[in-house]
Amino acid sequence: MSLEEALDKLLGAAQPLVGQQTVATLEADGRVLAQDIRSALDVPGFDNSSMDGYAVNCVEVAAAVAAGQALAVSQRIPAGHFGPALQPDSVARIFTGAPLPAGADAVVMQEEVESGLDAQGQGFARFQRAPEPGAFIRRRGEDVRQGDTVLPAGTRLGPAELGLAASLGLAELPVRPRLRVALFSTGDELVMPGEVAPQDMAPGAIYNSNRYFLAVLLKRLGCEVSDLGIVPDRREVTLAALRQAAESHDLIVTSGGVSVGEEDHVKPAVQQLGGLDLWQIAIKPGKPFAHGWIARAGQVGRCHFVGLPGNPVSSFVTFLLLVRPFLQRLQGVSSGLGVSHAAADGLPQAISLPAHFDWPRADRRREFLRVRRNAAGGLDLFPNQSSGVLTSVAWGDGLVDLPAGRTIARGDSVPFIPMAALLG
Amino acid sequence: MSLEEALDKLLGAAQPLVGQQTVATLEADGRVLAQDIRSALDVPGFDNSSMDGYAVNCVEVAAAVAAGQALAVSQRIPAGHFGPALQPDSVARIFTGAPLPAGADAVVMQEEVESGLDAQGQGFARFQRAPEPGAFIRRRGEDVRQGDTVLPAGTRLGPAELGLAASLGLAELPVRPRLRVALFSTGDELVMPGEVAPQDMAPGAIYNSNRYFLAVLLKRLGCEVSDLGIVPDRREVTLAALRQAAESHDLIVTSGGVSVGEEDHVKPAVQQLGGLDLWQIAIKPGKPFAHGWIARAGQVGRCHFVGLPGNPVSSFVTFLLLVRPFLQRLQGVSSGLGVSHAAADGLPQAISLPAHFDWPRADRRREFLRVRRNAAGGLDLFPNQSSGVLTSVAWGDGLVDLPAGRTIARGDSVPFIPMAALLG
Repeated sequence: MSLEEALDKLLGAAQPLVGQQTVATLEADGRVLAQDIRSALDVPGFDNSSMDGYAVNCVEVAAAVAAGQALAVSQRIPAGHFGPALQPDSVARIFTGAPLPAGADAVVMQEEVESGLDAQGQGFARFQRAPEPGAFIRRRGEDVRQGDTVLPAGTRLGPAELGLAASLGLAELPVRPRLRVALFSTGDELVMPGEVAPQDMAPGAIYNSNRYFLAVLLKRLGCEVSDLGIVPDRREVTLAALRQAAESHDLIVTSGGVSVGEEDHVKPAVQQLGGLDLWQIAIKPGKPFAHGWIARAGQVGRCHFVGLPGNPVSSFVTFLLLVRPFLQRLQGVSSGLGVSHAAADGLPQAISLPAHFDWPRADRRREFLRVRRNAAGGLDLFPNQSSGVLTSVAWGDGLVDLPAGRTIARGDSVPFIPMAALLG
Repeated sequence: MSLEEALDKLLGAAQPLVGQQTVATLEADGRVLAQDIRSALDVPGFDNSSMDGYAVNCVEVAAAVAAGQALAVSQRIPAGHFGPALQPDSVARIFTGAPLPAGADAVVMQEEVESGLDAQGQGFARFQRAPEPGAFIRRRGEDVRQGDTVLPAGTRLGPAELGLAASLGLAELPVRPRLRVALFSTGDELVMPGEVAPQDMAPGAIYNSNRYFLAVLLKRLGCEVSDLGIVPDRREVTLAALRQAAESHDLIVTSGGVSVGEEDHVKPAVQQLGGLDLWQIAIKPGKPFAHGWIARAGQVGRCHFVGLPGNPVSSFVTFLLLVRPFLQRLQGVSSGLGVSHAAADGLPQAISLPAHFDWPRADRRREFLRVRRNAAGGLDLFPNQSSGVLTSVAWGDGLVDLPAGRTIARGDSVPFIPMAALLG
């Protein structure tokens, strides 16, 4: 099965969560907007100065310049204060963001004005030339007009979106409920870090690392994560654990146990409690992947089930390629204001960069090579692509998306997906 | 002052925090490693199969193939179990990750083997050809050797690094203390969202949005943030508030009040309590920026002070360009395993992409234009670059770094800095 086909099936099975919560804007980082946000304000709310300088009437300045005269400074308007209408034949000292007084139609930068005090202690300002009407004025509603949709429903909220919402006066925001994800690990050989010291590890035992990065990836994507530990070895206990997790979660994620030949109690248990598809996806790293569901006893809806490969690199990459878009869909993320093309529905958009390496052996599967940009603007390859440990992923700052059956010669332009775009 | 010069001064003034804490690996996302992490293990810890298939002795398989005979399947080795040495003239059913039995020197993929049961119920396997010795075997220590430094001190920890540490058995990690940052807002015109409804806003008042995105940006960069609200209006109270904040924080951040002409109690107060430099940085958006310090009464060390422009877009962009690298330096972030070239010390590396817009008016300052990648792989420009609201930053997925005095014609390649690389 191709990656696109798997993604289509997976996204087709994902209904966005219903419901909505109200959360404080300061606490909404990573959440997904449940409603369009419309502005109740014009921004700016008043014509104001975009510079520190002098608010003037252009015709008066032109006359003063022609006559070789200065104009009186009749008032001083700091940000946050409204001044009275400009007195005839005078200007106002004004600061960035301060409201333009009535009668003024331009601002002149302070750097272009000679100012001082006359013998009576009255401030004056001398101009070199008359400004254009409208110069250095930000008009009311120029940035946002009252009633405009500034953030559409489905936007994933980040620092800029939250700042924007705050600037419209919104101390709270309507967001989708958090996705509740239960994490199970499976595999007889797994030992939790901290339980057994490295020197005391039994032959064949390996540390469970998948739960660590999966929990962090899920939290970064705004999920509420319950780590339910290692799946018990006995069938009845597994059934009970899955049934119980399904009642209070939207998604159960496991890793390991999805290969054809692996010993596993989870697959038959999920099959019995709902349904399960096992896919062999033509990607490397990756390949085995399970998607299923578990019926809920008393409630509407189902709990989704996703089974990732046990190999950490396969599990990590498969998460980024398949589970991330699946989560986004469940969370109701759509093309928000800040979402790049295609980012909501699948892979982030790739960037074409030159390979500074050779990859002479084509594979039957589409490959995702761990690479890093170098100082020369090209891509270096992590030398051990077959590694099962996450060194390649930690070392790399992105993936090269290499179609099946293709090789790379040094200098070729290849599609690069930045890791930062996959982890946020 | 150029951006590079400002960055040099700022980084020169930043001494990395001393001290170290031990935190659970599961809780260490975003933290910075205080020590090199060396592996106490070989990974893999034993020769193992990289495929589901059959562990074989190549010479025996060659002989069996030549004789047209099958070989007995004398054992079954799932992952996590050690089998005995291979019996002569037999093979072992083996699964991905399972230890290779003594006497085996290759693995044959199950897809290339015809297997079944003979009349006595004994499993057999028939091979098409003899494998190469070493085929589909992951060697002990192939990925990580005992004693290797796998994560250097100064690495910012993310999902891959945490997974890697867990795979080495580390349930806890030595990290730098969190940077304690106090956030002050300044400006008479500022109103907190939620305090006054949009329709009741006084003329000239604007909502304080900077505290919202600054708090979120700081938290994303692993800081502990205290929001100390709006700086009081009276000098003595301002002095006391700053003095107190300096005792329990490593950095005080304010926005607003750093322009030449702005009304502000903070500048003179910081000057009185320590020292302050006001810089005019030749960037757009941006420009006014303050860096200073406040002496601590009873303690060693100083509290840093950073003053950002009040305009939200200027404040946001200046944070990304200057404060982010400053924080990284204070946090002791160095070129970790996953840090791209230059990412630790300044701007993330730019990528050359074609502009799908014209920018005909050169500016005397270096400009950071808010842009977004389009479906054609080019960059679209946010139409209102002069806007004070954050719409451009929320809409964009990156910045074009345009040198002073330069214009852009449609089709030109321009340096693009992805926003995702700046927010993590």
